[in-house]
Amino acid sequence: MIALAGFPLVQAGDDLSALIAHACDRTGLALQAGDIVVVTSKIVSKSEGCTLLLHDVTPSENALHYAEITGKDPRIVEVVLRESSAVSRAAKGVLVVRHRLGFVSANAGIDQSNLENGDERVLLLPRDPDESARRIRDGLRDLLNVNVGIVISDSHGRPFRMGNVGVAIGVAGVPALRDLRGEHDLFGRELKITIQGYADMIAGASGLLTGEGSEGRPVIVLRGALFTSDQPVTAHALNRPAEQDLYR
Amino acid sequence: MIALAGFPLVQAGDDLSALIAHACDRTGLALQAGDIVVVTSKIVSKSEGCTLLLHDVTPSENALHYAEITGKDPRIVEVVLRESSAVSRAAKGVLVVRHRLGFVSANAGIDQSNLENGDERVLLLPRDPDESARRIRDGLRDLLNVNVGIVISDSHGRPFRMGNVGVAIGVAGVPALRDLRGEHDLFGRELKITIQGYADMIAGASGLLTGEGSEGRPVIVLRGALFTSDQPVTAHALNRPAEQDLYR
Repeated sequence: MIALAGFPLVQAGDDLSALIAHACDRTGLALQAGDIVVVTSKIVSKSEGCTLLLHDVTPSENALHYAEITGKDPRIVEVVLRESSAVSRAAKGVLVVRHRLGFVSANAGIDQSNLENGDERVLLLPRDPDESARRIRDGLRDLLNVNVGIVISDSHGRPFRMGNVGVAIGVAGVPALRDLRGEHDLFGRELKITIQGYADMIAGASGLLTGEGSEGRPVIVLRGALFTSDQPVTAHALNRPAEQDLYR
Repeated sequence: MIALAGFPLVQAGDDLSALIAHACDRTGLALQAGDIVVVTSKIVSKSEGCTLLLHDVTPSENALHYAEITGKDPRIVEVVLRESSAVSRAAKGVLVVRHRLGFVSANAGIDQSNLENGDERVLLLPRDPDESARRIRDGLRDLLNVNVGIVISDSHGRPFRMGNVGVAIGVAGVPALRDLRGEHDLFGRELKITIQGYADMIAGASGLLTGEGSEGRPVIVLRGALFTSDQPVTAHALNRPAEQDLYR
């Protein structure tokens, strides 16, 4: 795992593929086929201009209701609800929703840190992180003539466990899951626990170098013993379908 | 991240510190202060003899009840219940419990793969994985005169997300969580999302090399930019306390 050095602050309209190619060059790293490049959702959102000014937001009745339960700013709650398909749990200080992208997360992944005029501007997640990942992958192929995998990472809390970990919300060239069914263990028994949250493992690993909340190391390259694919992929495969979800 | 080469099949009574020291030697790796050694729970359990023969198990009434709901072998259900403090969810093919060690997992982490006489013998999780981690850490200090961190990893499913990922069930010399509260982002705002599931991130990262169900690469060494500690630590810190758990 290698963190790209001296990555610049990202602005709306920036071409992330070009910034990554330049940062690889500065780091002295030549990307190779099969490398996986992990990019934080934060810089993807910033490059895509996914920001919103809070003073433009008028809270709905529903937002006022959940603001009262949670004690959060009603305008923030309004933005969270707009980004969500359902509220999963609300309590003092906690608003967990099913994001429009299908995963369950606190505050719909909305971020107020590392933004100029922090208190009045919020950053939403990218509109379609799989599409963002494909665009970065295509851009790097055009610029460097190399096929890499891309994972867009976000930092999530978890229902039963303390502490945030990285998860994948967008993928390109990297399978979201790896299905090991049919493989056998050392004694010839078919494996039972057989599906790896592969892109989540990659996002989680990269978090050891990214750190939390930092924009200083937003791009991590993984090399060696990794599995990429030219098949169509989507991070939606990581969202547990409703009929298998016992904790809705 | 480095997978130790040619790790032998572990037997009850084996000294894991000695096996790890030998495997480092074979791999040409000299452990350094601050390295983190991740060991799968499977080989810890095997070395501690945490196995059970199913023909010695008589299912209780409660086990027969959950066997009917889940369709699982009543003897396996009995063992799962003995290892648990509560059933979290039961459905066809699914038995999720709160393990006596405090985390929520499917089948209490009981494993039937990679065991000789697979169908009749099951492997339980280590009795006290924090204690196992300390013992391995102390052993490596005695053998190699080096202070490393130890993480005992297990592979867990997740309520809202598909695919298993590695988590930490025992730690020594590595904080379970890293609390970044009080740190500031690039614009001087205090960070809001502030607690990292640090040992879980390490266990998850190591899973990229360990693979699933394999005993071939059960020990992974992480080096560089990692945080170890000589303070007392416990993996119990990763278990969300009941009063913060909205999904019990």
